[in-house]
Amino acid sequence: MPHISLPEGLPGIRGPMAFRPETAKPLNELVDVLLRGPHTLSPGERELIATFVSARNDCRYCQTIHGAIAAHHLSGDEQLVIDVKRDAQQSAVSDKLKALLAIAGKVAESGKRVSDADIERARQQGATDLEIHDTVLIAAAFCMFNRYVDGLATWAPDDPDFYRQRAALVAEHGYAASTAQRSAAVTHTTR
Amino acid sequence: MPHISLPEGLPGIRGPMAFRPETAKPLNELVDVLLRGPHTLSPGERELIATFVSARNDCRYCQTIHGAIAAHHLSGDEQLVIDVKRDAQQSAVSDKLKALLAIAGKVAESGKRVSDADIERARQQGATDLEIHDTVLIAAAFCMFNRYVDGLATWAPDDPDFYRQRAALVAEHGYAASTAQRSAAVTHTTR
Repeated sequence: MPHISLPEGLPGIRGPMAFRPETAKPLNELVDVLLRGPHTLSPGERELIATFVSARNDCRYCQTIHGAIAAHHLSGDEQLVIDVKRDAQQSAVSDKLKALLAIAGKVAESGKRVSDADIERARQQGATDLEIHDTVLIAAAFCMFNRYVDGLATWAPDDPDFYRQRAALVAEHGYAASTAQRSAAVTHTTR
Repeated sequence: MPHISLPEGLPGIRGPMAFRPETAKPLNELVDVLLRGPHTLSPGERELIATFVSARNDCRYCQTIHGAIAAHHLSGDEQLVIDVKRDAQQSAVSDKLKALLAIAGKVAESGKRVSDADIERARQQGATDLEIHDTVLIAAAFCMFNRYVDGLATWAPDDPDFYRQRAALVAEHGYAASTAQRSAAVTHTTR
């Protein structure tokens, strides 16, 4: 049961976001820019970074929904998502993404853990400043989202189809628009 | 030296924010709502939560600038900021804020560490759902900001007066406005 009274029927981050729309707005804007904005990394690659960090932080809701969104962008390749969570460095992603995932994993522990050697490895695989910047910020942002979701003890559905359906909606409409849709449908009974 | 080429002369988070204004916008909007919006917790109390978490995460720039902003809001009481960072539970803050700081400290480790007993203690001191929600999100957000600042190896000034002067500016104008001012003054030489 969540630690505070949240609108019912909304799993994971969606409960707190409906509870506090003033903070939901910039949070959704942030992920729309980071995960869906114009970029040299594909949406699928960026969602893999988010999923990988959420798995490191053991956040069930975040790793499952972002894993489903990643798979949706990656032609439904759910096995690749499983492989990246299990051992990213042995998975079938590009060498550049492996280097960026290594940086993301360090960020999840502490920003100070990112070394010059980690950055140099990414550069040798062709990573740009913007790709390195966004990898660090995606990883940092999911350290926030994971703590937000678990720190309020929100619930997460068991049914994988729930996440697949939600993933299709988010992939098509984006985070802010999907939040607006769901918030309008919720009756605020508690505050 | 920062891991990527950032506009020169901007310490801490200000370099990456000038580098990537698309993400700076929602990040600043988030802290303006969380730390400065209308609230039953004062701006000084909320800045103390941000400072406390940043100290736990050993982020020098964040704990120093937000400590200075907290002190600015708290009639210049820099000793209270030092006390909260050193041992919040023995400091001169209210019992309610002590309970909220205990929750914030748990969030910094992992959202899963926040227990029913932590929440119950805060409620017994009069904390509302909104105060608990915002404490969790402030703590989570600074786990992001700290990792963003340190994950890119940004630099932090040594002079305490730098932080005091910047604190006065942010306290008067807010985060988004202060960022807009500084960004307009920066020449983007690299990208």
